[in-house]
Formats: sequence, C-alpha cells, structure tokens
Amino acid sequence: MTQSILLKNRPKGKPALSDFEFVTDDSKISINQGELLLETTYVSVDPYLRGRMSDAKSYVPPFELNKPIHSGVIAKVITSKNDNFKEGDFVSGMLDWKTQQVSNGKDLLKIDASKAPLSAYLGILGMTGLTAYLGLTQIGKPVAGETLVVSGAAGAVGSVVGQIGKILGLTVIGIAGTDEKIDLLKTKFGFDAGINYNTSKDIKADLAKLAPNGVDVYFDNVGGPISDAVLFNINKFARMVICGAISVYNNTEIPKSVSVQPFLIKNSALMQGFIVSNYAEKFPEAMTKLSEWLAEDKLTYSETVVNGFDKIPNAFIGLFDGKNKGKMIVKI
Amino acid sequence: MTQSILLKNRPKGKPALSDFEFVTDDSKISINQGELLLETTYVSVDPYLRGRMSDAKSYVPPFELNKPIHSGVIAKVITSKNDNFKEGDFVSGMLDWKTQQVSNGKDLLKIDASKAPLSAYLGILGMTGLTAYLGLTQIGKPVAGETLVVSGAAGAVGSVVGQIGKILGLTVIGIAGTDEKIDLLKTKFGFDAGINYNTSKDIKADLAKLAPNGVDVYFDNVGGPISDAVLFNINKFARMVICGAISVYNNTEIPKSVSVQPFLIKNSALMQGFIVSNYAEKFPEAMTKLSEWLAEDKLTYSETVVNGFDKIPNAFIGLFDGKNKGKMIVKI
Repeated sequence: MTQSILLKNRPKGKPALSDFEFVTDDSKISINQGELLLETTYVSVDPYLRGRMSDAKSYVPPFELNKPIHSGVIAKVITSKNDNFKEGDFVSGMLDWKTQQVSNGKDLLKIDASKAPLSAYLGILGMTGLTAYLGLTQIGKPVAGETLVVSGAAGAVGSVVGQIGKILGLTVIGIAGTDEKIDLLKTKFGFDAGINYNTSKDIKADLAKLAPNGVDVYFDNVGGPISDAVLFNINKFARMVICGAISVYNNTEIPKSVSVQPFLIKNSALMQGFIVSNYAEKFPEAMTKLSEWLAEDKLTYSETVVNGFDKIPNAFIGLFDGKNKGKMIVKI
Repeated sequence: MTQSILLKNRPKGKPALSDFEFVTDDSKISINQGELLLETTYVSVDPYLRGRMSDAKSYVPPFELNKPIHSGVIAKVITSKNDNFKEGDFVSGMLDWKTQQVSNGKDLLKIDASKAPLSAYLGILGMTGLTAYLGLTQIGKPVAGETLVVSGAAGAVGSVVGQIGKILGLTVIGIAGTDEKIDLLKTKFGFDAGINYNTSKDIKADLAKLAPNGVDVYFDNVGGPISDAVLFNINKFARMVICGAISVYNNTEIPKSVSVQPFLIKNSALMQGFIVSNYAEKFPEAMTKLSEWLAEDKLTYSETVVNGFDKIPNAFIGLFDGKNKGKMIVKI
C-alpha cells in the first residue's frame, strides 16, 4: 500500500491542512530494467516549498495541483534493476511525498550511513549546509574581523551560517524569535550575541549596540521589518545575501518595506538573491569543507524530527510558526 | 570682488532659495608660491549634492553650514605660482561655489579646450560620463542582445547610459517624465522605446509590453515607485545598478517601497549601490572609451545651461522639478 500527499489547493496566506490531500494506492508496484523501488525514510520540509505551491513566476515551476508534492528525501533501495544501486543502499534526492516510489536513479545521490546520520544528508551535508556555505562565501565574501548578522538564525540554514562565520573569524550576531533560541545560538552554535525580535523594543537600536562597528555581511532568511532594521546598520561595501524571505512568503499582497535604494547608494552596498542550485559546480568544494568541519566537531546542528508520514503537512505548516529548531525533518 | 554661495540651512524636503546665502568679499586675493588664482567658468549642479546638504550618514561628509558649497567646476587660471599650471590654462576639479578662489593645484585636472567644449568636461567627459560608463559596465555587466532599462533616462547620466547600451548591442528602454523627453530619447539618443511615467497608467504593464523578454539590466537613477514597477519585470540573473534615488532625496521620512527581497530571490538578481569614486582605477579606461565614442559621433549629449553665478541655487533646485534635459550647468 502506497500513500501519497497531493497539493489539493494553492494556499492563500499561511498553508492549511486542507490544502493537502492524502491518497492511498494498493496496487502492486513493479519496476523495469534500470529502475529502483525506493522506500522513503526521511522527508525534508523547507520554507521554499511555500513558493512552489503558488503559481507566481519563480525560479522553478510551481507544483501541479492534484499531483504529489516533492522535496528533499532520503530513501532506502528495496529492489534494484539498476547497476548503480543495490538493495539496502540509501539515497538522497528530490522525490515525491510518497511512502514508496519508482526511480530511474537519475539525480539520486548514494549516501554513506557510516559517515553521518542519514538525516544529516538532508541538512548539514545536504541542501541546508550547501546553502549556508555557498551563500555566505560566494555572495557574502566574509573577511576575518568583519561583523556578520544572520536572520532566522536558529533555523536550519541560519545556525550553520553563524557557525561558519565563527570558523572564518567573524563576529556573529543572530536574530531569532524566542529567548530559548537565542540561548541556543550562544551556547550551542557559538554566536557572539543574539536579538529576540519578538521582545526587542527596537531591533535597529539593539543591533547598533551589539554591532558598534556596523554590519559587513547580512545573511537574510526572513525579509520584512527585521531586514529593514539591519539596513540602518550596514557598513560601506556591505554584502547582503538574500536567501529567504519567510516573513513575507504567506503574504497575499505584495508587502512594503523601507526603500533599500538609498541605503545601497550611501554604502556602495550589494544585495543579491541566492539560490543554491546556481552554484552546483561548487558543491564538491562545499561538501569537502562541511564534512571536514563536521568531523573536526567545528560544526554542529539541530534537527526537529517529527514522526510519521501523515505528519508531513503539519511539520511544513509548523515552519511558519517557528516550531522548528534547526532543520525540520519528518521520519517515516 | 569675490562672490560665494554658502549653505545657510540644511534643507527640509525640497531645497529652497532661503537655504543658500550669497556673500561678497572685496578684499584683494594674493597667492603664495605653489598656488593658483582661479576664475570660475562653469559650475555643475547635481542631484547628489542634496545628500551632502543633509547631515545624515553618507559616503562623503555633509557640507558644513555657513561654508561655501562645492561641486564640479571648470575654472581658468588667472595667476599661477605653480609649475604645473600656467596663466590661461583651464582646469576641472571639485571647487567652491565662488567666482574666484585660490588652489594649490592638487586634484585639479588640466583640460584641453581644443578637444571638446569646456562644459563637456563636467558632463560626458567628466563625472557624468564616468558614472554612466562604469556603473553600466562594472555592475550592470551588459551582454549584447539583453534588455536595458534606464530611469531618469533624459538626465545627464541616463542619456549617456542608454547610448552606451546601444553601442554595446542592447535593447534600451528609457523612463522619463515628459513626452518631449521621451521623443528626445528616441530621436537624439537612439533609445528603442520610452515610457512617460507621468502619463503612463501602469508603468509595470507598459514595461512588460516594451520588454517582452524581461529586463536584464536596470540602471536606476530614481528609486521609488518607478523602480518598484521595474522589479516586476526583471529576468533571472538581472543586475540593478543603484546610481541615484532622486525620487526620495527630498523625503523627510524614510520612504516605503515594494519589498525587493522576494524579487531578488526569485530571480537570483543583484542590486548594488554605485559611487563613481570607488572605481578611480578604471577612470583612464573609461575616459579613453568615452573620448573615442565622442570623436566617432557615437555619443552625443544634452546640456541645460543657466547663465549667471547668482542662478546656481535656482539651477540646483530646478533638478528636482525635472527642469533639465541632460547635464545641468551654470555658466558664469
């Protein structure tokens, strides 16, 4: 029996459980020569998926209605008629939200369960880690001694960005939404300081105090008023990595923010949108660095693991309430 | 008798004549060894001077109250006790708004009145031309066949940017505020198309029609709602050169615009503030190109010349009403 999760409606504002549909198929699955039968082990839920649920123009086509949603998945090979994979192998790839599925093996990556826990390949050794490393280094171009601010700092990407910032010799300030998260940033991830945007009376002023020399690199996962506050504190030649805008993904109207242009001119500053898939030629370099740092215990990570295939939509919706600390993963 | 123009008040909103003070000094000017006595011939008035009249943090320190304002000036050497200059030479430099002044010759550039009209050295062969060429090439990175949009297109910088775009093989669309300016863009400066932002009912939709393949490079002189409309039309990997924000320079409150972050992410696009002085090492290359194109009649320019030292403040204020076509210059 195979279960699938389809996109039933394009969400209006925040996604709701009613936007998803579960379907069950109990027909027997057979595979052809060159194919694999996969059983889903872990499913990654990520804020960017919200964009694909809309039909607005974006960097990837939208999900189709009444078709399975897909995202980063770790799966186990159950049967293989493909020479590159054997029964019992674990693979990662962009796969459907299905308990079982057939693949031709294209774009699947074999992963080594002895080197790191399987779920790490959806996080620190997967798109999360690659996004953090490549966004920070390719656009942020950090220099030792500079000041880095990270928004969504306790999230999957943000917590890795801050740690890499520390490894590279920067002062790192994180912005997150609870005191518990701020504590975690400082104790577990080695950030120098943090701002709780929910209790701060003036993020702009608090940041000015914590970053008296100004902000050189801003790794932006959230957009909106938090990013406005950072703008007031940027230095000449600041680099702003625009990686996510979770604060506005659910807006049904186009949001307004402080005009960025005068800040960019005054500071000869740069803002650039970052999509990890544009940097595929740098993945091997990034994986090498991330694996080294992980092996040397210079990097650590948090996961929020939710159990059960039927909880995938809840886990996804929870991202928009900040229910995750670090990478949000569903274990099947 | 020497006349000077001082900054009397920091303007609130749009500058007013009452923000300037004329003073007259009839003491005799004597010069020391190494110095020059200069007589002002042409004065450049530019939108960026508005920023220096405020005391907000910016890339150059603000003008001091009750001190002469300075800007790009062409002057004639009246007396020289400096071996690098002789009587009758013409020079360009950042000089005070004074009819006569003493200089040590440092940072003055000798200019050749036989190669181009003197005033051109404040415009197409001065900061205007350098800004257009270097902003477009260094940040815009234009590629033949792409689409370039220029705001403030009939202004000094904008009209040169569009012409360079055409020389480099791009489709060029200009945005300006009168039908007369739009005509000029197409007939004199060779733009492919223009949008009058004062009569357009929907700049975003008009631009979508004129740029059916999307916008690859945006050279932004204005900021505000015009730039918001361009954002909706950018292509993947678009580059936005943020050179000016004249639409918001006079705002007394920090203006709000459409949030740029989601557009930057969706399109892996870049916005970067451009200040010509950061690219000084490229000035010789740029001057060579501009002089060549000017000699080959591939570049032309407009000037609005206002006569009389006492009209400098009026000419400056007129910039904010769009009273200039091309470079606004005051002839003394």
